[in-house]
Amino acid sequence: MSGTAIEISEVGPRDGLQSISALMPTEAKKAWIAAEAAAGVREIEVGSFVPAKILPQLADTAEIVAYARTIPGLTVAVLVPNLKGAQAAVATGAHKITIPLSVSETHSLRNVRRTHAQMLEETAAIAALIREQPEGSRPKLEGGLSTAFGCTLEGIVPEAKVLSLAEALMAAGCDEVGLSDTTGYANPAQVRRLIRSVRGVVGDAACTGVHLHNTRGLGLANALAALEEGITTLDSSLGGIGGCPFAPGASGNIVTEDLAFMLAAMGYDTGIDLERLLAVRQVVRAALPEVELYGFTPDAGLPKGYVPGSAYGA
Amino acid sequence: MSGTAIEISEVGPRDGLQSISALMPTEAKKAWIAAEAAAGVREIEVGSFVPAKILPQLADTAEIVAYARTIPGLTVAVLVPNLKGAQAAVATGAHKITIPLSVSETHSLRNVRRTHAQMLEETAAIAALIREQPEGSRPKLEGGLSTAFGCTLEGIVPEAKVLSLAEALMAAGCDEVGLSDTTGYANPAQVRRLIRSVRGVVGDAACTGVHLHNTRGLGLANALAALEEGITTLDSSLGGIGGCPFAPGASGNIVTEDLAFMLAAMGYDTGIDLERLLAVRQVVRAALPEVELYGFTPDAGLPKGYVPGSAYGA
Repeated sequence: MSGTAIEISEVGPRDGLQSISALMPTEAKKAWIAAEAAAGVREIEVGSFVPAKILPQLADTAEIVAYARTIPGLTVAVLVPNLKGAQAAVATGAHKITIPLSVSETHSLRNVRRTHAQMLEETAAIAALIREQPEGSRPKLEGGLSTAFGCTLEGIVPEAKVLSLAEALMAAGCDEVGLSDTTGYANPAQVRRLIRSVRGVVGDAACTGVHLHNTRGLGLANALAALEEGITTLDSSLGGIGGCPFAPGASGNIVTEDLAFMLAAMGYDTGIDLERLLAVRQVVRAALPEVELYGFTPDAGLPKGYVPGSAYGA
Repeated sequence: MSGTAIEISEVGPRDGLQSISALMPTEAKKAWIAAEAAAGVREIEVGSFVPAKILPQLADTAEIVAYARTIPGLTVAVLVPNLKGAQAAVATGAHKITIPLSVSETHSLRNVRRTHAQMLEETAAIAALIREQPEGSRPKLEGGLSTAFGCTLEGIVPEAKVLSLAEALMAAGCDEVGLSDTTGYANPAQVRRLIRSVRGVVGDAACTGVHLHNTRGLGLANALAALEEGITTLDSSLGGIGGCPFAPGASGNIVTEDLAFMLAAMGYDTGIDLERLLAVRQVVRAALPEVELYGFTPDAGLPKGYVPGSAYGA
């Protein structure tokens, strides 16, 4: 694995902030994104184009996208629940658009009030919109299969359902599909199995990212399993902020700091300067003093003898 | 992996209790051990034969071993730092004796005030003592290679040093060697590498257990890597109590509850009833009300649709 590039996609400014009641000021968001990009994070999901009355925490997404676009080398990702959101995302120049499709239809109805068929129609409309854009300025479209590993409402989510929706998303015009453990139910064996199955259906190149949670403490073990199956983009959140506000009992993203340490210590290239990444916590803490930041590596520090850019103990 | 037996070796009554200042009453220890064995845990490290003035928390180890021996099917393990401790362990009928040998000699001197040569001599004397016992009542002797993945005092611990000490422990008469991430420095790539190397030297059958920490949040990822290398015994501590009191900055065992959940969800057979295991926390909390218990699964609960004894989502 030495030197293999792995992308950590920071989702805190979107997934993290939508899960907490406090509103982070726009300038603080910019400072967070700037600091984390400066620490070497190469992809950040900076917001979501949803109605401000639903998620007032993300009402400034257009301004945040415009700002993030000015940071050289940064892939600016956003979430959109529908065509209207995608239009805003395209207008602001986001590089990557994710539309979530919950494999549990009960969760889909609860989360975005839409059936699978409605979400697939919306996805096709978004794909058409993207195709209309001039070449070179078309964002990548990802269909995010949420509750792919189980649902707090429906329980076990059959693999066959994940596979057919993965195919349907690709048929609707997505560039790729992502697997999301929205509820924190996944285990490493299941992660391996599902990635293999989905890749068997859509091809390896169309399934490169996973969004895992740490709800039951298995986040990094699941991330390891995903990595070893060839996944190259892993979502996480600084300080582990966030989770899914519409899946009762589920909380806790993977902590970016711990994930970045694991990958670096294993010898992967994430582009991240760990010391600078740890310092980003101060930026977030200053803006959200009442929000608890998680993570073990920040407390424990880096191992004695750790040399940036090389596998520890090798 | 379906149905493959994996042993969780609960080390809380030893590693956990030695790390906290509170003294747990003997009766409470017995209740803890009984409850955890009743939940299906098949091996428990119940104490350590060290002078009471050094670790008063474990002064009742002889009584605890005698009690634990009355529980059918339970492997009763103890730690001993020297021959005197081993004599006590043999006298009480412990099934498994671990003598720690810190690969970092600086840590060894700090922890047990002995050099490598002195510890190896001690190990040989213990092996001789065990050989003198009547067949059928000889405890298994494990050499525990602590700081095998790095040391808070020495930094990187060369793999060659781990290998030569593993060989030396086997030559001194150990039945097997275990690898301990005393400082919580290990990463999954290193875990895989070191297990392979050590097994290459001592043979697979003489390296079946690892003692991993969760200091930087990588505990379960490291456990997964170990499992996939063929390790069949994983140490952990109920509520994550403990760590190493003599390695500054290092704390945090793997949480038994989260490990047991991960293994069960993957389809491994640990013999553990998860609901009953989670209930053991109440026994420990009642006896140690001021000690913080860690773990994610206890808060999040088991996934909806989880069926004991089967892999989730498979």
